[in-house]
Amino acid sequence: MAHISVSENIPGIRSLAEFRPETGKTLYALAQVLLRGESPLTPAERELIASFVSTGNQCKFCADSHAAAARALYKEDRDLVSKVLQDASKAHLSPKIKALLSIADKVRESGKAVSPELIKQARRAGAGDRDIHDTVLIAAAFCMFNRYVDGLATWTPTDPKAYEEMGERLATKGYTLNK
Amino acid sequence: MAHISVSENIPGIRSLAEFRPETGKTLYALAQVLLRGESPLTPAERELIASFVSTGNQCKFCADSHAAAARALYKEDRDLVSKVLQDASKAHLSPKIKALLSIADKVRESGKAVSPELIKQARRAGAGDRDIHDTVLIAAAFCMFNRYVDGLATWTPTDPKAYEEMGERLATKGYTLNK
Repeated sequence: MAHISVSENIPGIRSLAEFRPETGKTLYALAQVLLRGESPLTPAERELIASFVSTGNQCKFCADSHAAAARALYKEDRDLVSKVLQDASKAHLSPKIKALLSIADKVRESGKAVSPELIKQARRAGAGDRDIHDTVLIAAAFCMFNRYVDGLATWTPTDPKAYEEMGERLATKGYTLNK
Repeated sequence: MAHISVSENIPGIRSLAEFRPETGKTLYALAQVLLRGESPLTPAERELIASFVSTGNQCKFCADSHAAAARALYKEDRDLVSKVLQDASKAHLSPKIKALLSIADKVRESGKAVSPELIKQARRAGAGDRDIHDTVLIAAAFCMFNRYVDGLATWTPTDPKAYEEMGERLATKGYTLNK
């Protein structure tokens, strides 16, 4: 049961957006611009970073829903997502995305853990300012979303089918509070 | 020097909002509704939670600017802020705010660290759903803001006067990108 009175049949952040629509609206707007707005990173890559950070933070709701969104967006390369979440160092990824995931992992720990050396590595692998900016902000934002949904003990579905449906919706409709 | 090309004379998150206005706008909107919108917690109490979490995360820019905003809002009780940041357990605070700060501190660690016992304690001290919700989201949001400004190594002023000015501006004008 959640720590506060939210609708028990609505999962994760959706139940919190219903509880407090004013913050819900700005949080969904942030997710939309960050994960779907203009960026050198594809929506699939950005969903992968979101799920990778949420997996590190052991937030099942965010990890599984954004993994499902990444799978729906990677299409024929969908198997890549589970491989990255199991062991990113062994997954078949471009050196740029690998370096950006290393940055995201450090952000999860602390902003101060992102060293100039890690940034240099990413630049050598082809990352520009916007790749680095978007990676840091996505990782930081999921450190918020993860703590928000778990800190209030919102409902986390266990049925994989529920996440598949969320992933499809996020891939096609993006971050909207409309059904 | 920051990890990406931002204006070096603009501190912290303001430099990032200039670098990427689309995300800047939604982040400022989130801060405004969360710290100034309708809530059972006063703006002073919410700024105190923001500074307390940022102090725990050792993010000097956010800790000092929100401490200054809290001082400007607490007015004659301004000395309370430094006492809370030094040792919240010894500060002269209501049992409700003390219990909410304990929740905020756990959110900083992980959402899962917020135990039902801690929530019960807060309720016994008079906290309702909205107090608990707002505390968890403020703490979670500052886990994002702290990582965002430090993860990109933005400029952190060292002059206390700079923070006093920021605090006055935040207390009177709120979160706006206008000067």
